[in-house]
Amino acid sequence: MSKIQIADNAFVYPMPMVVVGTKVAGRPNFMAVGWVSRVNFKPPMIAVALGKAHYTNRGIHETGVFSVNVPGLDLLEKVDHCGLVSGENEDKSALFTVAEGQRTGAPLIEECPVCMECRLVQVVDLPSNEVFIGEILGAYAEEACCTGNKPDIEKIRPFTLTMPDNRYWAVGPEVGKAWATGTRLKG
Amino acid sequence: MSKIQIADNAFVYPMPMVVVGTKVAGRPNFMAVGWVSRVNFKPPMIAVALGKAHYTNRGIHETGVFSVNVPGLDLLEKVDHCGLVSGENEDKSALFTVAEGQRTGAPLIEECPVCMECRLVQVVDLPSNEVFIGEILGAYAEEACCTGNKPDIEKIRPFTLTMPDNRYWAVGPEVGKAWATGTRLKG
Repeated sequence: MSKIQIADNAFVYPMPMVVVGTKVAGRPNFMAVGWVSRVNFKPPMIAVALGKAHYTNRGIHETGVFSVNVPGLDLLEKVDHCGLVSGENEDKSALFTVAEGQRTGAPLIEECPVCMECRLVQVVDLPSNEVFIGEILGAYAEEACCTGNKPDIEKIRPFTLTMPDNRYWAVGPEVGKAWATGTRLKG
Repeated sequence: MSKIQIADNAFVYPMPMVVVGTKVAGRPNFMAVGWVSRVNFKPPMIAVALGKAHYTNRGIHETGVFSVNVPGLDLLEKVDHCGLVSGENEDKSALFTVAEGQRTGAPLIEECPVCMECRLVQVVDLPSNEVFIGEILGAYAEEACCTGNKPDIEKIRPFTLTMPDNRYWAVGPEVGKAWATGTRLKG
């Protein structure tokens, strides 16, 4: 193949940035996460893959619940801060306005345009990370960030991450319709 | 919380689009996937969550290997086509130029700026999806899409997906440095 070999520690381009919320020892804590994906369609499940040493892992194990919050660009500095300091060393509960998820009690971030509260259904134990798989029991969006009751990415203005260069990126213009643009190749 | 409730079937904003390659009954097959994430740091592992009915699942189970390919914008139409038709009904092996992964034999896509070949290490069986966790045994990049031997997203020009509105998005401008921009909030 006409390519150069790069480090096996390769990444997805780009990774969506979310903030995972949980309570550790009764106090809300937040962590910046780029290793996140939906993993089951019905019931809706989402997974986050967290390094084992993280303070957040302890909270998810303790409470069996967590939240996934999608921040807008205006929160970039705070989100990056969440990734720089551990809840072990700093109380991050006052960084955001916290609301309790109605179904799980997981701490949700008011300032994030989209929030999901999840019940832990499975932990996949990998060598250096734990993959926490949660069922989404409640999802909420800022009305001003929706079009027709559905979240609208152009109003949410989320950002993404690339590694190993460690840069954040805004979302660019729309470039096609999924399950549609490829139709002309059909048959 | 001052938000409206949306469908529990909520999503990450935005999802990175990749093409998963595998061989089914000896023939390369490709599938468009937005449910993908790195899941382990060391050794490097990546996961894709595929609906159980997909033809690709059969190939990953049969061969124990798969590839994750990051397409550029120029491939959008072909990638969308991959998501519209099943390998069950159409031979997709000629859609791309195929190279065999040196370590796994998994089919890699020459036209994609970044390719990873993976050995299956675990399958997480969820109600409607299977999560295939693979160890990245080889990663390759188009030299013209690298800066300093590392893939550069501005040269890769990948695209992302939002659901349930089913739209594709280009990557926008750089908006910050990860593990850096939040430093000024420290202490």
